[in-house]
Amino acid sequence: MTILELPEATVAPLVRAVADAPDRAAVGERFARAAWSLVAEPGDGDAGRLVEELGAEPAMAALVARVRGEAAPGGPTIPDAAFERWRGRVGSGAVQLALRQAARFAATLVIPGDEHWPGGLHDLGEHAPFALWVRGDHARLRALDRSIAVVGARAATAYGEHVAMEAAAGLVDRRIAVVSGAAYGIDGAAHRAALASQGGTVAFLAGGVDRFYPAGHEQLLQKIVEQGAVVAEVPCGVAPSKWRFLQRNRLIAAATQATVVVEAGWRSGSINTAHHAAQLGRPVGVVPGPVTSSASAGCHRLLRESEALCVTTPSEMAQLLGEEEPIGAGDGAVGSPAPLDATRLRLLDAMSTRAGRESGRIATISGLAPDRVRAELGLLELEGLVRRRPSGWVRTVPDPA
Amino acid sequence: MTILELPEATVAPLVRAVADAPDRAAVGERFARAAWSLVAEPGDGDAGRLVEELGAEPAMAALVARVRGEAAPGGPTIPDAAFERWRGRVGSGAVQLALRQAARFAATLVIPGDEHWPGGLHDLGEHAPFALWVRGDHARLRALDRSIAVVGARAATAYGEHVAMEAAAGLVDRRIAVVSGAAYGIDGAAHRAALASQGGTVAFLAGGVDRFYPAGHEQLLQKIVEQGAVVAEVPCGVAPSKWRFLQRNRLIAAATQATVVVEAGWRSGSINTAHHAAQLGRPVGVVPGPVTSSASAGCHRLLRESEALCVTTPSEMAQLLGEEEPIGAGDGAVGSPAPLDATRLRLLDAMSTRAGRESGRIATISGLAPDRVRAELGLLELEGLVRRRPSGWVRTVPDPA
Repeated sequence: MTILELPEATVAPLVRAVADAPDRAAVGERFARAAWSLVAEPGDGDAGRLVEELGAEPAMAALVARVRGEAAPGGPTIPDAAFERWRGRVGSGAVQLALRQAARFAATLVIPGDEHWPGGLHDLGEHAPFALWVRGDHARLRALDRSIAVVGARAATAYGEHVAMEAAAGLVDRRIAVVSGAAYGIDGAAHRAALASQGGTVAFLAGGVDRFYPAGHEQLLQKIVEQGAVVAEVPCGVAPSKWRFLQRNRLIAAATQATVVVEAGWRSGSINTAHHAAQLGRPVGVVPGPVTSSASAGCHRLLRESEALCVTTPSEMAQLLGEEEPIGAGDGAVGSPAPLDATRLRLLDAMSTRAGRESGRIATISGLAPDRVRAELGLLELEGLVRRRPSGWVRTVPDPA
Repeated sequence: MTILELPEATVAPLVRAVADAPDRAAVGERFARAAWSLVAEPGDGDAGRLVEELGAEPAMAALVARVRGEAAPGGPTIPDAAFERWRGRVGSGAVQLALRQAARFAATLVIPGDEHWPGGLHDLGEHAPFALWVRGDHARLRALDRSIAVVGARAATAYGEHVAMEAAAGLVDRRIAVVSGAAYGIDGAAHRAALASQGGTVAFLAGGVDRFYPAGHEQLLQKIVEQGAVVAEVPCGVAPSKWRFLQRNRLIAAATQATVVVEAGWRSGSINTAHHAAQLGRPVGVVPGPVTSSASAGCHRLLRESEALCVTTPSEMAQLLGEEEPIGAGDGAVGSPAPLDATRLRLLDAMSTRAGRESGRIATISGLAPDRVRAELGLLELEGLVRRRPSGWVRTVPDPA
């Protein structure tokens, strides 16, 4: 019998169906983690500490014993408040159901220590998920090792969706995976553009991976399953809720190396993702927008109130990873010539393209010393910016600046 | 005879015509400063130091003596490079012309020490202007004591002009004068909106105040003369040049207590104004815009590369002055309710507006302890957010967040 009173013979095949199921110990660990992901809400620090301390299986066994009133004296102490939260969910058989449902949807159970467990999640400490349920080849979670979250408002504008798509396309061009939450608006645009560019993309859901949410993104999520991965920390059968959306955001922030907020209303959930990222020490990029657009109000709020960096191009977003962009890859100021120094500016200011002027006259007009003017004119002539005519010096460029 | 060999009888009435002309000494000082503003280009630190050290009149006398080859041994030392810059402009009679022209346009000469000399200009040290030529009641320069520069691109978009006008109107509503450079685009929009709101506005020009620039703003500048002030550090007759535009920007930055850049291309002159302001320790606000708009590229550059603050409303701009906004004056987040705390969010998440649920069931769904759920339900009932029905608890609000 397992810790939750299900026959080993029932549980083991189910666990094996949702994992490259290894030895007996691994089965127990996996089953216990699946159980914890049902018993405790995402981010429950009491559960996280207990599992960290005892291991998932002994921790669940201790919980079950206490529920049965069989807790060993001197055994592990479960905080009373936590026990009250968990007891109503223990032994409900829901784990079996969740595993069965996962198997039906070909979802994989990935746990810490597995090859493809996203390293960034360790930074969540006691708030880390117990397990991840993954649809799509779970080996694709490797893409998270070089990934940026592109998140934003559901009520996005055409501007925001355009920027999100440019961002995602530009990032996958740089072999950076695009991570988001599969919501309408910015999230969807980011996933779509990543898919269209044949790039890696991972969607984190707030509910179970057996039920795609939002319903209108059924097809999109199906494509992500085929080309990337759809991930949740809650088991199959669990509905998304506001709280779980907020907790899901911490996964997006932690699993990636940087977070970019494209459009966000004053109290958008993506601000919450940005705060999670900042707390984890991950760089946060914010795309500005028109101040007349309420869909960018949250972005501007982040720029004002936090350490977030203004980002305007995929190149600037990629730089959040701390890598140097190769020369020419930048999409900002490339091609802008160096500004003229002050002397040359004043000298060219004092010249005409038509009326020739002697160097002394140019000195008086520009307020520069005549010697300096003669020397600079020589250099500028070599560079083709001025020319000597019988009537005096003229400049060859219409506008010196 | 004056230092520039003009008869005192010629000069004194001219100086008096352009000042509340006081005693003989003041006439000499004013005339000398007018002369320096012709001899040296704006921001010439050598001239600034010399005038600071000797006073304007003795400094000009020393320069004239050296031009004549009459420099007294052991007299003040003029750096050779500086002397070479200045000598071609000494004694040209242009001062007389400039004063005559100023008198014709009813321009006033204001010098340091005068009641209305803008205090902020002292921060420029040796690069401070020698004098200001002012059209419009020079007493209106007082408005600079509580002023913000609103500057930006000439090639502004409809968005930028809209924001500039909202900014200027909102600032003058708060009794803050709007200072700009009278250029096309953002500058013009800011001046216009300030005028329309009956607010204080001051335009700093790069050329003499006798010749309005740009020509298309002749009418606008005339209105600023009537209601505010048009100011230049170069005398009448001096043409604007690229160099003088850049130097004019330092005046705008120094004369105001903060600078706001509304729209700016990648290498807009307003970035130069922002840099001057930052160097002077003045706060710099930057209005973001669409990243797809090249007219905002310079703004985003400032947000990325400098200490500039993102500002989106007149209230946020006014806050650059370091004053507290009265409650309700903010135009940002007013009216946003405080977010629900995590417990309440999870609790309301677990409830329905239709199906009644017992507190124990709500505890299981939400993953909260039953005691906690019962206590919170009581509080939420008092606040009208939940209701007890025969079938159980329901919430009264459709969306908890």
